[in-house]
Amino acid sequence: MATSEPRATGGDQDPNSANLRPPSTRFLQKNNSLEEKGRLAGQKNLLSCDNSDRDARFRRTETDFSNLFARDLLPAKNGEEPTIQFLLEVVDILTNYVKKTFDRSTKVLDFHHPHQLLEGMEGFNLELSDQPESLEQILVDCRDTLKYGVRTGHPRFFNQLSSGLDIIGLAGEWLTSTANTNMFTYEIAPVFVLMEQLTLKKMREMIGWPSGEGDGLFSPGGAISNMYSVMIARYKYFPEVKTKGMSAAPRLVLFTSEHSHYSIKKAGAALGFGTENVILLSTDERGRVIPADLEAKIIDAKQKGYVPLFVNATAGSTVYGAFDPINEIADICEKYNLWLHVDGAWGGGLLMSRKHRHKLSGIERANSVTWNPHKMMGVPLQCSAILVREKGILAGCNSMCAGYLFQPDKQYDVTYDTGDKAIQCGRHVDIFKFWLMWKAKGTIGFEQHIDKCLDLSQYLYNKIKNREGYEMVFDGVPQHTNVCFWYIPPSLRGMPHGDERREKLHRVAPKIKAMMMESGTTMVGYQPQGNKVNFFRMVVSNPAATQSDIDFLIDEIERLGHDL
Amino acid sequence: MATSEPRATGGDQDPNSANLRPPSTRFLQKNNSLEEKGRLAGQKNLLSCDNSDRDARFRRTETDFSNLFARDLLPAKNGEEPTIQFLLEVVDILTNYVKKTFDRSTKVLDFHHPHQLLEGMEGFNLELSDQPESLEQILVDCRDTLKYGVRTGHPRFFNQLSSGLDIIGLAGEWLTSTANTNMFTYEIAPVFVLMEQLTLKKMREMIGWPSGEGDGLFSPGGAISNMYSVMIARYKYFPEVKTKGMSAAPRLVLFTSEHSHYSIKKAGAALGFGTENVILLSTDERGRVIPADLEAKIIDAKQKGYVPLFVNATAGSTVYGAFDPINEIADICEKYNLWLHVDGAWGGGLLMSRKHRHKLSGIERANSVTWNPHKMMGVPLQCSAILVREKGILAGCNSMCAGYLFQPDKQYDVTYDTGDKAIQCGRHVDIFKFWLMWKAKGTIGFEQHIDKCLDLSQYLYNKIKNREGYEMVFDGVPQHTNVCFWYIPPSLRGMPHGDERREKLHRVAPKIKAMMMESGTTMVGYQPQGNKVNFFRMVVSNPAATQSDIDFLIDEIERLGHDL
Repeated sequence: MATSEPRATGGDQDPNSANLRPPSTRFLQKNNSLEEKGRLAGQKNLLSCDNSDRDARFRRTETDFSNLFARDLLPAKNGEEPTIQFLLEVVDILTNYVKKTFDRSTKVLDFHHPHQLLEGMEGFNLELSDQPESLEQILVDCRDTLKYGVRTGHPRFFNQLSSGLDIIGLAGEWLTSTANTNMFTYEIAPVFVLMEQLTLKKMREMIGWPSGEGDGLFSPGGAISNMYSVMIARYKYFPEVKTKGMSAAPRLVLFTSEHSHYSIKKAGAALGFGTENVILLSTDERGRVIPADLEAKIIDAKQKGYVPLFVNATAGSTVYGAFDPINEIADICEKYNLWLHVDGAWGGGLLMSRKHRHKLSGIERANSVTWNPHKMMGVPLQCSAILVREKGILAGCNSMCAGYLFQPDKQYDVTYDTGDKAIQCGRHVDIFKFWLMWKAKGTIGFEQHIDKCLDLSQYLYNKIKNREGYEMVFDGVPQHTNVCFWYIPPSLRGMPHGDERREKLHRVAPKIKAMMMESGTTMVGYQPQGNKVNFFRMVVSNPAATQSDIDFLIDEIERLGHDL
Repeated sequence: MATSEPRATGGDQDPNSANLRPPSTRFLQKNNSLEEKGRLAGQKNLLSCDNSDRDARFRRTETDFSNLFARDLLPAKNGEEPTIQFLLEVVDILTNYVKKTFDRSTKVLDFHHPHQLLEGMEGFNLELSDQPESLEQILVDCRDTLKYGVRTGHPRFFNQLSSGLDIIGLAGEWLTSTANTNMFTYEIAPVFVLMEQLTLKKMREMIGWPSGEGDGLFSPGGAISNMYSVMIARYKYFPEVKTKGMSAAPRLVLFTSEHSHYSIKKAGAALGFGTENVILLSTDERGRVIPADLEAKIIDAKQKGYVPLFVNATAGSTVYGAFDPINEIADICEKYNLWLHVDGAWGGGLLMSRKHRHKLSGIERANSVTWNPHKMMGVPLQCSAILVREKGILAGCNSMCAGYLFQPDKQYDVTYDTGDKAIQCGRHVDIFKFWLMWKAKGTIGFEQHIDKCLDLSQYLYNKIKNREGYEMVFDGVPQHTNVCFWYIPPSLRGMPHGDERREKLHRVAPKIKAMMMESGTTMVGYQPQGNKVNFFRMVVSNPAATQSDIDFLIDEIERLGHDL
C-alpha cells in the first residue's frame, strides 16, 4: 500500500503576475456589434477565452505518482504537468473500463457482500483518514472502485430501466463536470441554460403542444419530476396553498394506477396530501388503468366531500411497461376539470419513434409530462424533464425571488434566469449530455435505438411465450420492452397449482438472480406484483444488447434454475 | 460546418460469440471463503472483471472524425478504436480547458447576450435536428460550449459560494459518469453505497453525535436537504401526516432567520405548511438570529393557537456568512420541544477546521444538519448531505416499500438498500468525488483549504475596511469568508446621505458587475438586503485564489467604478 507520509512542503500558490486587461474600459453594452466582435477578437492574445488551441495536444509520459499528492496538482506551482499526467492516467483507467464494458468475455459484476467490501478487499480500504494518500494510491482506488462495481453498460445488464453506456453521453458528462457550473442563472451557465430551453421546446413539440409552447425544467429524477406535477396542479387550482398551507384547501385527492410508480404516493406524503388521499386505480390484466374505475372513484370521492385534483396516467409502467389509455383518461379529466399528468419517465422515449408513439396518443392533452431521457433514450444518469403546458406556472408555484441570485438589475434579459422556477437552488447541469447526444444521433438516431429495443423485446417474447418451462405474467405482445415471465423449474412443472407451488415458485426468481450475481454473467430484475409471486421483469434499453444476449439470458436462467 | 449526410451503413452489432461461463454452477453463498476467492481468481482468464490490465495503455492517433458518426462508436462493430480516439480527443479539449482555467491571462468568461448565442456564434448552432452530425462537429460543439461558458474554477471567479475546480474531484466525476449507476440499491452500486455510509458517518462524527450514529443521505443540493429536514421534523411529531395529510395536524409553524436561505420558505410552500407559517426571525446587525426574538415568536405563535414545530439555525448565511448562535437556539428548542435543524450548507465545512469549528458550537445538539461539500470544501457540483441524529426516521418518513426495487428476499443484507429513505427513486452518485477527495487530501487537506480561504477573506477585510471609497455593510471581522461592502465612486463620496445617494449607490454595483462581465476579468456577486441598497458580496471558496487575486478584484472595482 502506497500510503506515504505527506511531504513537508505545501503546494504554494503561484499567481501569474500578468494581470492583463483590455486596453480600454468598455461600458455596459446591450449588443456587441460586429465591429465590437472584431475588436474583441483582436484582444485574444492578451486575454483569451479560446479553447481551440490545437497545438497544445497532450503527451502522455511515465510519471511516478507515489510521491505526488493532491496538493501538487493545479493550482499548485508547477502543477500543470502532474495535473495533466494524473488526468490522463485516470482516463487510461476509464477507457480500459469502457472497452471491457462492451466485452462479453468480462463479467457484469464481481459480487461481494457488504461485510466483505467493508473488511477491505486486497487492500481496497474504504475508510477515510486525516492524512492524505499519494496519487498512486488514488489511482489504485479508482481501479478498485470500478473493479467491485457493476457494469451497467454491459450488453448483458438488464437489471434496470436505465442501462447502457452511451459514448457521446459519457463525453458530455465529462465536459459537464469539467465546466462544473450551476443551472440557476444565465450569468454562470449561459450556454447550458439556452440548451435546456431549446431542448425542452423540442420535447414539448414532440408531445404535441402547439408550437412547443409551455414550460419545463430538468430535475434530479422522475420522482422529483412527478412531485413537481402534483405541486403545480395544486398551485393551479388552489394557489393560496403556497402561502396559507394545505389548510386553505379542502381535502384534495389524487388518482393514479395501482401499477404506477411509487413516487406519486411519495409526493402525496411529502406535499401534505397524505398517502390515503392518493387513490389507486384498478387496471386490466395488462396493467392499464380502467377508465370507468377512474370515473367511479372520482364520483365516489366527490360524494364523500373530497375534491379530486389530479390524475396521473402512466405511459410505460415500471413492471409491466403498460401504457394507460390517455385519451379516455383525458376525457374524464376534462369532464371533471382535473389536472392530467402523464408519467412518461419510462415510456416518454417512444414519442421519438414514428412506429410506437401512438402508444402515447392523447399525451398532447396532458397538463404536464414527466419524461426521463436517462431511461429509454440511454442518456447517462441523471436526466429527467418535467414539462408543463401552461407557461409561467412553474415560476408562480415556486418562486421566492431571492435577491442575492435573481437580481432584476442585471445587464441581460433576466427572464433567462430560470432558477427560481425550481424547488432546488443549485441545480446540476443535466442538459449537456442529452443535447450532445441529440446533436450526434439526430432524432432518427433515438428512433432507431428505440425501435431496436422494442424489436428485441418482441424477439424475447416470441422466444419464450410457448417455450417449455415459461409462463407469461400477462398475455399478448408487451407494449413496451418489459417482458414479464416466470421460469418454472422442471421440479415444479408437474405440480398442481396451489399454495405449495406458489410458495416454491416465489423463491425461484430470487435464487436464480442470486446465482447470476454470484457468477456475474448477467443481471435481470424480479419482483412480485399484487397477488402474483416473484417473476422476472426483463427490460431492454441497452443499445449494446443483441439477440444473442437475449438468448444468453434464457440459457443462463435455464442453466441456473434447472435443478431448483 | 461539418454537417454531412449520414452514411447508409448502420452500426451493426457484433456480439462476441464467446459465451464463457465459470466451469461449475456455484449456488447461493453468504460468504466467499478464501478458498473460494482463490478459485475465482483462477477464473480470471475466462471471465474477468479486472480493470488493472496495464499493458492496454492508450495510444493517441490522428483520426479523421469528419466521416465518423455516433453510430460508429461502441457498441458498433469495430467501434473500439474510434471510441477511444474520440474520447481522447474530448479529453484533449478538457485538459486544455483545465489548464486555461488556472491561467490568469485568460478571461473568466466571454460574455454574450442570450439573443447573440441563440442567433449562432460563428457556427455554434444550438438547434437540434433530425439528422446526426459528424463527430468532428460534435468536437467543435464541445469546444464552443466551453468557449462561451463561464470558468467557475478561474482564480478570479468569486461569484458563487461554489467555485474552484478540484482536480481530484474532477477525476472522481469522470469516473462516476463512466460507472453510470444509481444509488438506490447495493445491488447495482455496492461500492458507492458503502462509501456513502462511511462518509456520512465521518461527517456525523465531526458534528459530534455520539459514535457518529444517526442517518443521512446525499441529496441533489442544499434546498432539497433542507426540505428533508422539515419533512422529517413533521414526521417525528406528526407521523400521521404521512398517511392523512396536513389536515391531520394542527397549524404548524416553522422558524428561520430573515437572513436564511430561501429554501426553508420553498420547503414550507411545497410541503403544505404555507409560507405564512414560516416565521422569520430578526437578526442583529451581523445577520445572526436574536434568540430572544425566537422565544418571543414561539410564545406568540402558541398564544395564537399555532403549534411551533421546527427551528432552522443557519451556520453561514448566504449573504453575510453569519452563524446563528446554535447553543442558545438549542436551549429554546429543548424548552419548547422543537426540532432543531442547522443549515450548514455553506458553513458546515468549517467543522473540518480546528481553528474555526467553534463557530458551529452547539451543532451536536441539532436534530438534523445540512452540509454541502460542494460549497466550502470545493467538491464539484452536486454534493449535499442531509444528516439526521435519529436513526430510522428518514426511512419511516419516506419509505413506500416498492416491491420491484427493494425485494426483501435478496441474497445480501438488504439494509444496505438505502433508496427507500429518499424522496427520489433514482439517485445520482454524488459520493465518489467527495470520498476520493477526502482520501487524497485527508481531513487536514480540507482544514488547510478552509483556513486559507478564511485568511484570504480577512486579508480582503483588512485591506478595505478603512480604505477610501469603501463602506462595510456590517462592522467587525466576518465570521465566514463573506465580505460585504459598498464601493463609493468619487462622484458620490461628498454627497449627503439621503434618497438620492441611496438611489445612485444602488446602481453602482450592478454597473460595475456588468462591466466586469463584459470585459471578462473577474466576477463577484452583489445584492440588496433588507433596506440596504445593492452591495458587493465577496466570498472565497476557490482554492486557486490568492492575495494577488483579491488585490486584482479591488483594483478592478476601482478601475471600472471610478467614473460612475
